[in-house]
Amino acid sequence: MKFNTLKWTENGLEIIDQRLLPIHEKYIILSTTDEVCQAIKTLAVRGAPAIGVAASYGVVVAAKESTSIDFVRSSMKKLRLTRPTAVNLFTALDKMESQLETAFDSGDPINFLLCIAQEIHHEDYRICKNLSIHGAELLSDGDTVLTHCNAGALATSGYGTALGVVYAAVESGKKISVFADETRPLLQGARLTAWELAKNDIYVTVICDNMAATVLREGKIDHVIVGADRIASNGDAANKIGTYPLSICAKEHNVPFYVAAPLTSFDFSIATGAKIPIEQRSEMEIHTIFGMQVAPANVSFYNPAFDVTPFSNITAIISEKGIARQPFNSILKQWSIK
Amino acid sequence: MKFNTLKWTENGLEIIDQRLLPIHEKYIILSTTDEVCQAIKTLAVRGAPAIGVAASYGVVVAAKESTSIDFVRSSMKKLRLTRPTAVNLFTALDKMESQLETAFDSGDPINFLLCIAQEIHHEDYRICKNLSIHGAELLSDGDTVLTHCNAGALATSGYGTALGVVYAAVESGKKISVFADETRPLLQGARLTAWELAKNDIYVTVICDNMAATVLREGKIDHVIVGADRIASNGDAANKIGTYPLSICAKEHNVPFYVAAPLTSFDFSIATGAKIPIEQRSEMEIHTIFGMQVAPANVSFYNPAFDVTPFSNITAIISEKGIARQPFNSILKQWSIK
Repeated sequence: MKFNTLKWTENGLEIIDQRLLPIHEKYIILSTTDEVCQAIKTLAVRGAPAIGVAASYGVVVAAKESTSIDFVRSSMKKLRLTRPTAVNLFTALDKMESQLETAFDSGDPINFLLCIAQEIHHEDYRICKNLSIHGAELLSDGDTVLTHCNAGALATSGYGTALGVVYAAVESGKKISVFADETRPLLQGARLTAWELAKNDIYVTVICDNMAATVLREGKIDHVIVGADRIASNGDAANKIGTYPLSICAKEHNVPFYVAAPLTSFDFSIATGAKIPIEQRSEMEIHTIFGMQVAPANVSFYNPAFDVTPFSNITAIISEKGIARQPFNSILKQWSIK
Repeated sequence: MKFNTLKWTENGLEIIDQRLLPIHEKYIILSTTDEVCQAIKTLAVRGAPAIGVAASYGVVVAAKESTSIDFVRSSMKKLRLTRPTAVNLFTALDKMESQLETAFDSGDPINFLLCIAQEIHHEDYRICKNLSIHGAELLSDGDTVLTHCNAGALATSGYGTALGVVYAAVESGKKISVFADETRPLLQGARLTAWELAKNDIYVTVICDNMAATVLREGKIDHVIVGADRIASNGDAANKIGTYPLSICAKEHNVPFYVAAPLTSFDFSIATGAKIPIEQRSEMEIHTIFGMQVAPANVSFYNPAFDVTPFSNITAIISEKGIARQPFNSILKQWSIK
């Protein structure tokens, strides 16, 4: 990968500021918990796995800020409140929390916590790579993949899920091209997916979200692959707003629709997607694009950040454990046993 | 209607400059054919019926520019080349052309042509009003309509087609609210539909195109109503890109999907939508929003301006002749006999 999504430095957590892409490739250091929280909330770092890793480092940052375990605990509470939908945030913080007392008992809580955070970081990279290698088996030389939002290196610790599948296929010698939905309102597809694919020399064509049905109908697409922010026990998958209609259009055109996500994005505590909390974001994301007002001020807006794709619209789910095909029940049950 | 989409003045054709809405309500005068062509190409005036009316006045403008019938003829050729998909442009220009020699024989071609253009203008208004009254019968008090792009007063000579149905329902005493897809890439929904509905005191909520499936699934929508740029003999309807996936999502959620268009938008010379030419527009519309670059420069873009909704996804077509329900064959055949 020709850039680092996030890495630990002696001054704190360094991230690529995704708000500035694709115009500026700028790296910033987060050296307080508040800075980490703000970076997650404002999407300077985003993508379910990357949020989990960033929050883990956020706990190390808190331990550097204060030697008080209570301060670190309250910092973790703040980190938990940054975003509601991606379950990786909570999975990662649970892991950090389970080691918190031992870390403080060890006499060197910073280094102790740093080791766990780095373990989470490196494990996410390995897991993404593994799931990508599994997913790559689904792609043939010359195929074209349609994706939505950004489930790439930028959304993870550096390899990607949906785009990881593309990278792994390319690394195995297949020629793959990509159509990227621009993904309103925050244009992660146009800004981030297009940027990271071009940076890695993969041919990418950007379309508006509402053009996906046209390219599907025109036979331009062999596979739709998306990431997920949270997958319920039955396979219902929450992902960036616009994923659900894309699944409906893929079904209409008999194009396989894959969800690629690490097990850290699964929430086996909930039976269906109906239980996944959907983040509502500011109306400003719709009416103001890069500082330009595009809609009248005296109207209403509705801005859900995610939607839930029902398991029945998903051809297969790709994780580090392999590929789950319909019916999902028994294989997802196996996956739920760690 | 609290504004004029277009009107004839002694200096030429006055239009509201739709490129500047909703921020500025500015009216401009077009006094040369080139100005009229440019206004149509750059979408200062847009919407299938409005384009037809503007082109008709464009012929009058040409007659004012030069007393030569050859000049007017070559101006008409330029007008025909402005945009390919909306059939109203060609229908209106055919009508003007059929009277061209008589107009020049009359000794007062300007006034002769002006009368025909005004007839086209006023007839479009009457037709839109009539189709809207028919369509309004489909709406009940308290209903919510989802629409795409702008098929309102701004898209016609001043009343609208899809939004005309809403206006007529409201005028008949029903309370109707609207969800408006913002409609990338040019945001006609956020900029124009939201503006004209708010101006006429109708409650409107703007969403990104990829949120339509969510509001349909949440049961917020009673009817989807859109306009059309060209309707084939079998009922296949070309309309702004994004209409086709909306029709798929409406079907998925059992919400009726209506197309409202005057007979001037029908092209009975073609059997199916496969014959409708689809305008491809500049990639800049996708990668640069209001002057801000949102995607990397070194990637590809694909920007079809329209898609075709198959007749099978359309619950009913509303025209000034009434409401055509499935199966469309016999009733559209009747409509085709002028």
